[in-house]
Amino acid sequence: MRIITLTTDFGHRDPFAGIMKGVILSINPEAGIVDLSHGVPPQDIVAGALVLSDSVPHFPAGTIHVAVVDPGVGSARRALLIEAEKSFFIGPDNGIFSLVLRERTIRKTIELSNPAYHLRPTSATFHGRDIFAPAAAYLSLGMPAEELGSPTDEPSGFSWPEPSKGERSVEGEVIYIDGFGNLITNIREVDLPAEPSKLVVSLGSIVVHGLVPSYAWRKTGEYVGLINSSSLLEIALANGSAQSASGIPIGTRVTVRADAGERP
Amino acid sequence: MRIITLTTDFGHRDPFAGIMKGVILSINPEAGIVDLSHGVPPQDIVAGALVLSDSVPHFPAGTIHVAVVDPGVGSARRALLIEAEKSFFIGPDNGIFSLVLRERTIRKTIELSNPAYHLRPTSATFHGRDIFAPAAAYLSLGMPAEELGSPTDEPSGFSWPEPSKGERSVEGEVIYIDGFGNLITNIREVDLPAEPSKLVVSLGSIVVHGLVPSYAWRKTGEYVGLINSSSLLEIALANGSAQSASGIPIGTRVTVRADAGERP
Amino acid sequence: MRIITLTTDFGHRDPFAGIMKGVILSINPEAGIVDLSHGVPPQDIVAGALVLSDSVPHFPAGTIHVAVVDPGVGSARRALLIEAEKSFFIGPDNGIFSLVLRERTIRKTIELSNPAYHLRPTSATFHGRDIFAPAAAYLSLGMPAEELGSPTDEPSGFSWPEPSKGERSVEGEVIYIDGFGNLITNIREVDLPAEPSKLVVSLGSIVVHGLVPSYAWRKTGEYVGLINSSSLLEIALANGSAQSASGIPIGTRVTVRADAGERP
Repeated sequence: MRIITLTTDFGHRDPFAGIMKGVILSINPEAGIVDLSHGVPPQDIVAGALVLSDSVPHFPAGTIHVAVVDPGVGSARRALLIEAEKSFFIGPDNGIFSLVLRERTIRKTIELSNPAYHLRPTSATFHGRDIFAPAAAYLSLGMPAEELGSPTDEPSGFSWPEPSKGERSVEGEVIYIDGFGNLITNIREVDLPAEPSKLVVSLGSIVVHGLVPSYAWRKTGEYVGLINSSSLLEIALANGSAQSASGIPIGTRVTVRADAGERP
Repeated sequence: MRIITLTTDFGHRDPFAGIMKGVILSINPEAGIVDLSHGVPPQDIVAGALVLSDSVPHFPAGTIHVAVVDPGVGSARRALLIEAEKSFFIGPDNGIFSLVLRERTIRKTIELSNPAYHLRPTSATFHGRDIFAPAAAYLSLGMPAEELGSPTDEPSGFSWPEPSKGERSVEGEVIYIDGFGNLITNIREVDLPAEPSKLVVSLGSIVVHGLVPSYAWRKTGEYVGLINSSSLLEIALANGSAQSASGIPIGTRVTVRADAGERP
Repeated sequence: MRIITLTTDFGHRDPFAGIMKGVILSINPEAGIVDLSHGVPPQDIVAGALVLSDSVPHFPAGTIHVAVVDPGVGSARRALLIEAEKSFFIGPDNGIFSLVLRERTIRKTIELSNPAYHLRPTSATFHGRDIFAPAAAYLSLGMPAEELGSPTDEPSGFSWPEPSKGERSVEGEVIYIDGFGNLITNIREVDLPAEPSKLVVSLGSIVVHGLVPSYAWRKTGEYVGLINSSSLLEIALANGSAQSASGIPIGTRVTVRADAGERP
């Protein structure tokens, strides 16, 4: 069984994801389809990129990942199939694969330009159904990528906000807030300027002294700083929502300092 | 593998859909189950009918579609299995299949009255679990429809709001608002009184001049009129939510006029 | 095909459940994975326990049920695999399985302490991915439970609020509110002090005279008392949300009295 994953901003009210599954199963009844998320905030390409970068490493080699966060559908943006080490990626050329591709060698980039494998009539508003789902299904049947279109330039990226490092500090920002209200930053474990237990994290009115291994190390209602399961610095509220309690939005600056330890 | 789809208003908090899957897999472990939507607004039969009408054409022949939007559960409303061209439909007799059946010949309508294929004890509140899921599972095993109950009259419909056409205009209404906040009308592509680029669409305080192929043809924050992937007239806000921006509710009247082109 | 079900409080924005599926399918590509609910309110172990107790009886023998409502992740709480009659349970030792286990004999309780079957590196915040998903996948391949860890004491419970029975009355409370806004109580069908039609139910400002078989027995806008599909007393609003209409929260006391019938 070949696995096809779906990542979209379709939400859960409408049948768009179900329709893509119908298209895929009509072409390859043996495909195994897995939902990564249909709750990406509308048109939020960065959030979609984070979903893929967190999820892809946990899927078997050969998995086909389809992403449809696609505000440019119907414009000149390319529809792409990217063959990388161990995985295939199918979706719009808007940077949604750029995070997951940072750590992978791209073998081929194909523009999905062969209309023989598009659904007819082909809409200008739902390429997930008409172009991406069929491409994933034919690829899962073993069709060569080149049959689906023509070689093209490498995919576009987006400007990922890199944290800026000082000697004993690092500055970053909140890039994502998850469903628990945890505040996820762009600061990775390797960016930290000192041992986790000796750091002071500041964002908005929150100050957290020392990172801990897990939420359970702090009492209910206390803020927790930790390196999360994606290896990113995360600020949480023990048994609560840091987002609701603090009102801190995406984009908020985050400063991490090595604690002097001795104060004058 | 035989495919069974599920369309319900169960939402995503409760395990009702998962329970139906358990019932199905207990009877036919090889069934392939696909969720179309569990986000149909509670008791909204029209929204459920639209989900089915948009989705069913994209599934393989022989697919069994189960719908449970069922405010009349436990009343005298019939529990039905409808065999139509290429597809089977299972659910309450409340009109939820009427849109999808407009374009299909009904071969058989069976009332699911054979208690041998109901779950026991049979609740009066969850026929999705006790009657519809088992019927779908037995049908997917190849059981003849007649074994599950008795032939009965054709399914009930509901009064679908047809648009009214003038010579150079058409009047309809907003019948659905999707998860992106796009306003979907009951006006089909074939109802339009002139070329799409030469139409003026009015609803509430919104006026849109000319339909375009896709959202990307308008700048962020501008309203967009287009024929959507279901072949219906839709009013959207480029990179935003037309619902949030306009406050327009379901039922709002929509007028489409052919633009005179020359003004005196 | 061996079935693995998932019950979590992950919500639908993030790919956590999808990641668990990737881990499972990487180990056992033939596993059949079914979502029971990812909409358990955050950290709400009682709600998770109700999901399992309603769902598990409808799955085939041998099904593996994984639950991740896990506020204590990263603390000393045990990670467990419980082999019971006909089913396996995998998750944190926080009582989430206690309701479903009330009616099942426990055969074995294993602490998932063998690091050879944990994902490496093993995070302290996402045992669903790193410990529970791999355990479920290896178990679904036929690996003996003992290989995954060591025998340990029986799982912890939580104090389930039992209703208190008088001679002609019973007192309980609202323990759950479902996605329709129906108020679910801890009063079971067997606890009722008289025939359903002769009962008076009071909670907050609501008084309901007589239980009926289903919602459709009352007119739109009227409160309905019934025994629901989980055999629990439920108060609903016909074609509406009892929660929205009444504002009654979880924990509200519920009194059921046998109606005297004759008043002096």
